[in-house]
Amino acid sequence: MQYHLNGFQPGGPFVAKALEVAPSSPETVDVLIVGCGPAGLTLAAQLSAFPEITTRITERKSGPLEIGQADGIACRSIEMFQAFGFAEKVTKEGYWVNEVAFWRPGEDGSGLQRADRIQDVADDLSEMPHVILNQARVHDFHLEVMRNSPHRLTPDYNRELFELTKSDDADYPVTAKFRCLDGDRETESIRARYVVGCDGARSIVRKSVGHELKGASARQLWGVMDVLAITDFPDIRLKTAMQSADQGSILIIPREGGYMVRMYIELDELHGDERASDRNVSSEMLIEKARAIFAPFSLDVKEVAWWSAYEIAQRVCDSFDDVSDAERGSRNPHIFIAGDACHTHSPKAGQGMNVSMADTFNLGWKLAAVLRGQADPALLHTYSQERRAKAKELIDFDRDMARLFSTKPKDAAEAAQFQHFFKKHGRYTAGVETRYETSLITATEKHQSLATGFKVGMRFHSAPVIRLGDGKPMQLGHTLKADGRWRLIAFAAAGDSGQPGGGIAQLCDFLTNDADSPITRFTPDRADIDSVFDLRAVFQLSHQVMALETLPKLLLPSKGIHHLTDYEKAFCPDLKQGPDIFDLRGVDRRSGSLLVIRPDQYIAHVLPLDGFEELAVFFQNVMGVQDLFGGPAAA
Amino acid sequence: MQYHLNGFQPGGPFVAKALEVAPSSPETVDVLIVGCGPAGLTLAAQLSAFPEITTRITERKSGPLEIGQADGIACRSIEMFQAFGFAEKVTKEGYWVNEVAFWRPGEDGSGLQRADRIQDVADDLSEMPHVILNQARVHDFHLEVMRNSPHRLTPDYNRELFELTKSDDADYPVTAKFRCLDGDRETESIRARYVVGCDGARSIVRKSVGHELKGASARQLWGVMDVLAITDFPDIRLKTAMQSADQGSILIIPREGGYMVRMYIELDELHGDERASDRNVSSEMLIEKARAIFAPFSLDVKEVAWWSAYEIAQRVCDSFDDVSDAERGSRNPHIFIAGDACHTHSPKAGQGMNVSMADTFNLGWKLAAVLRGQADPALLHTYSQERRAKAKELIDFDRDMARLFSTKPKDAAEAAQFQHFFKKHGRYTAGVETRYETSLITATEKHQSLATGFKVGMRFHSAPVIRLGDGKPMQLGHTLKADGRWRLIAFAAAGDSGQPGGGIAQLCDFLTNDADSPITRFTPDRADIDSVFDLRAVFQLSHQVMALETLPKLLLPSKGIHHLTDYEKAFCPDLKQGPDIFDLRGVDRRSGSLLVIRPDQYIAHVLPLDGFEELAVFFQNVMGVQDLFGGPAAA
Ligand SMILES: Cc1cc2nc3c(=O)[nH]c(=O)nc-3n(C[C@H](O)[C@H](O)[C@H](O)COP(=O)(O)OP(=O)(O)OC[C@H]3O[C@@H](n4cnc5c(N)ncnc54)[C@H](O)[C@@H]3O)c2cc1C
Ligand SMILES: Cc1cc2nc3c(=O)[nH]c(=O)nc-3n(C[C@H](O)[C@H](O)[C@H](O)COP(=O)(O)OP(=O)(O)OC[C@H]3O[C@@H](n4cnc5c(N)ncnc54)[C@H](O)[C@@H]3O)c2cc1C
Repeated sequence: MQYHLNGFQPGGPFVAKALEVAPSSPETVDVLIVGCGPAGLTLAAQLSAFPEITTRITERKSGPLEIGQADGIACRSIEMFQAFGFAEKVTKEGYWVNEVAFWRPGEDGSGLQRADRIQDVADDLSEMPHVILNQARVHDFHLEVMRNSPHRLTPDYNRELFELTKSDDADYPVTAKFRCLDGDRETESIRARYVVGCDGARSIVRKSVGHELKGASARQLWGVMDVLAITDFPDIRLKTAMQSADQGSILIIPREGGYMVRMYIELDELHGDERASDRNVSSEMLIEKARAIFAPFSLDVKEVAWWSAYEIAQRVCDSFDDVSDAERGSRNPHIFIAGDACHTHSPKAGQGMNVSMADTFNLGWKLAAVLRGQADPALLHTYSQERRAKAKELIDFDRDMARLFSTKPKDAAEAAQFQHFFKKHGRYTAGVETRYETSLITATEKHQSLATGFKVGMRFHSAPVIRLGDGKPMQLGHTLKADGRWRLIAFAAAGDSGQPGGGIAQLCDFLTNDADSPITRFTPDRADIDSVFDLRAVFQLSHQVMALETLPKLLLPSKGIHHLTDYEKAFCPDLKQGPDIFDLRGVDRRSGSLLVIRPDQYIAHVLPLDGFEELAVFFQNVMGVQDLFGGPAAA
Repeated sequence: MQYHLNGFQPGGPFVAKALEVAPSSPETVDVLIVGCGPAGLTLAAQLSAFPEITTRITERKSGPLEIGQADGIACRSIEMFQAFGFAEKVTKEGYWVNEVAFWRPGEDGSGLQRADRIQDVADDLSEMPHVILNQARVHDFHLEVMRNSPHRLTPDYNRELFELTKSDDADYPVTAKFRCLDGDRETESIRARYVVGCDGARSIVRKSVGHELKGASARQLWGVMDVLAITDFPDIRLKTAMQSADQGSILIIPREGGYMVRMYIELDELHGDERASDRNVSSEMLIEKARAIFAPFSLDVKEVAWWSAYEIAQRVCDSFDDVSDAERGSRNPHIFIAGDACHTHSPKAGQGMNVSMADTFNLGWKLAAVLRGQADPALLHTYSQERRAKAKELIDFDRDMARLFSTKPKDAAEAAQFQHFFKKHGRYTAGVETRYETSLITATEKHQSLATGFKVGMRFHSAPVIRLGDGKPMQLGHTLKADGRWRLIAFAAAGDSGQPGGGIAQLCDFLTNDADSPITRFTPDRADIDSVFDLRAVFQLSHQVMALETLPKLLLPSKGIHHLTDYEKAFCPDLKQGPDIFDLRGVDRRSGSLLVIRPDQYIAHVLPLDGFEELAVFFQNVMGVQDLFGGPAAA
């Protein structure tokens, strides 16, 4: 945590200085977000970090969610929460999924016995655990980030979108009309440069741009309940897939606090216009079903904290913005949809909330970059391209997952195969398998061999280091905050201690002095030298033999109104904790390597330390003013 | 974290249900605390946990501290913060002291060079780091605990104590009179069962009971300043003792946020009635001095966030309560003093805030136990006995420390000796060397060999374990919350999996069924079985081979209005992280061992697993109704 740069401020460091003029509900905004689910709130939290950007977020409901809906939080989402500054709150309050148990009837086909019990998150998959926590609490943490931002952003509740139209207005081409459900007035209009529909599975924004969720026509009906119960089933505090001989199956998710448990019970498929309510599902019915599956174990439900008959189809939209594939080259998008609004999934893989947040973490920095003049608007096309591909993958995965949970391995070989599958899928459900295709912002794998564990297109996989300035053992990944900055992480070659003439010094020299350097080209005149590109270096030498005073100036930059030195740019391996970061992540010790990391923590490029030209060209393409699709610069 | 036991509650789990009737400023209270420094706030946070106890805390100032005073937070204090639930906030915001550098003139007696650079906190000294953070933030976190308590306790600011008197009133024998500085009215009186003076070095409470700080007559004058500065001194982000050839010395303490630095400069001694103000110390003067010591390195101070000429003598009181040594056997105390009110130290060892909090963490549970009928009032004598001995030790230590910082080792042997000293002292400044003498609540070392790393009289030294119920890797010490409960931690003998007839089962049988069991004797009728004594067991077997369902009922207790099962009582070794808890803490694998741990995390007793009689006698003495000093039960 860095603070007090521009003078000491009393109080907590998480509350930003409020902007002097912050009209609470402007009629025109840069970004209008519709819907306060995980997708909308992640985007609002991201955009609220930028004082220059005006954002509003509207919600039909009268206030924040209190209970229910999703609860699974993948490792990758917690890595993202770390970037937003609240990972430790989630890991403190939440239940940690450490192991998964599988229960099936015994050899003779009756009763229930533990068929397997396996580790949930593989070692070194992420520095973060897999956690279960009420979606409402995740909302709360996002709301807190927004509230503490310079804009003191809070949602406009009781605003139901009913119409979205586009005009030729060069500045604010989208107009949204809301019904005011609190009776202040009948309706309200907001005009925006960009609108993001995070309005859930029945999205009005999606309908307004003429998209449709496509896929399975049947909708699966799920019974889900959060209960306080007494049972003699021993694995009740483990995530458990329980398969009875003839009463169906249940997925047990222990919940935060040590007592509450969630149970998912797969009910029938719904067809045509049939609705969940037609099935007369009740909590009593769910309890009855659960008791039948639990037998011979007892299940005495004392309190149902929340329950739902939750219907869902596996579906995805053709496009996540208002530009069709055919139009991609000719105009830039102004309306986006994210989360359940453009893809829906069964709750089995626990992905709904995670994928929705990943959507808008992907979109947020792109909108900010364009609005802050740090990228060509063509960048915005990559949102639909990247996230739609992932949504489709997830639907395939969901299908496999369903199969996995319902097949009974017949022998040891099949059981082993099953475990292998689960492990592979574990990476997937943890959210760390996402890999974006080559694009404007994701380079090819040409130099991948220089850092085999930092895969181009995948998220930066953190590892332990020691911070040189103060000798602090920490995770390198935790320097990657959700602040819209690009990261350049330079891994030094063997023997390089930052001395003049070495690879790191030469890189710093290029970045500081060369006319083609992205830092010289794209950093605004009076801004801190690291305000657009945040360079960090990792050396191979122990921090105790390094000489901080000989580092290049770019690694000890002067910042802020007082020109104070930032001492947090240089790192060394943590030699106490087993293999160091070079070994853990396959970084070439002989030549070192330069990583280019996107503001959403995805690796854009792996380069040689002296790959100056490739680096320059990459950012010329992302940030250059020419429109790469040949259209006008800001359509 | 355990919550939702008595039904689901939306919102954050850290906010307790408010009491229905909570008069904001009662005229009579159980405990009146005077002073909102670290001592007073720790006590208030502790007492606010108990709905049955009425507390008020008063403060002369008009609101919370914002800046300045102490900043060093020892590992032990963070262990205590963990018990209060805010350790992670402190470690997140604070600067971590990882290494200490020593700079002295070179061989030729001129300039400055790094003589040494050593690890600050030895490995496995504590699971917590040594942190530097503004005392004001520590206050904030305590205030938050108080605000979230059932009482929603907040300080009464603008109340200056001017008189404290004792009467014969059986219920509220102490009357405190305050000047109301906010002009509401002239004065206010509060009557209390107990009064704790946490009113700092010039304590009125201390004077009212006729005690005096005794010790060095000279007071040391310290110049201290928190600055934002530019320097070419390379170790500016390390804690550094810098000794110039002839300009004096300086202690550099890097501060939270990455930019601010504190500098301590030892000035002259003050004599007689001389005050700091007589020396005309100014921040300019301190900067001048610092620059002279820093030479040949530059020091360009851009902003002084806070500075003080802070005068302090090394002194301690004869007694920390209103009972003299001569009277100890005949009556019980009703007025206590804590923190700077009864002992003052130089800031060199950074102990002021830590020791003050340790005082009232020691006192808090004792007051609560007596007020809740869980201990004989004679218990209260142990506060002065235990904490006074530690205060005197600290003064001796402070003297050594001063010598350590000012002697220059002449050769390698002396330097090695110096490092040895520093290591030893490191344990001390970390706060983990505190060892209480044998007393009513600290047994003898008779069975110490059963657990050589859990020393009777010292704080419970945490180690990693796996929680059996959910396979969670965690610190065992983090189950020891500041909730006034005694802990019984049973380490199983080899091969014991909790099966009937084993040592753990026999212990549980005794505790559950025997008429002499402290649980049966001292747990109130309708209270949860673990409300006074919290039994936990640690097995030697891997958690994957244990069968939870065969554990004794006392390790799976039914609790709360729904009689839900608590699954968080049984633990297994963490076999992934090197040596396990048995090896780390020298627990006898053959026979196991039973630890009795006080509500302030100090080890009261090490017993054989079947030491039933000794266990019974120990608690008979602590909790029994007879007055162990032969006087009336509640004098
Ligand atoms: C009732 C319910 C139960 C669920 N249960 C589970 C579960 O058990 N397990 C699981 O994994 N997932 C569950 N989910 C799915 C999971 O919650 C979603 O995948 C996740 O919330 C998606 O996030 P989102 O931000 O895209 O959309 P949502 O969380 O659906 O948020 C959309 C928001 O937009 C608001 N909104 C909608 N239309 C408008 C409008 N016209 N104007 C203004 N505001 C509007 C909605 O009120 C809502 O707050 C459930 C979802 C629902 C709705
Ligand atoms: C100005 C100052 C600078 C310091 N600087 C350093 C430093 O640089 N480094 C360091 O390690 N330590 C420093 N200390 C010491 C450190 O802050 C203390 O050791 C620590 O705060 C002791 O905690 P305490 O709760 O016992 O007392 P304090 O923190 O002193 O708290 C006592 C409280 O009681 C209040 N009070 C006093 N009299 C009355 C009354 N009659 N009625 C009502 N309220 C009253 C006071 O206003 C104060 O808030 C400093 C202390 C002071 C006062």
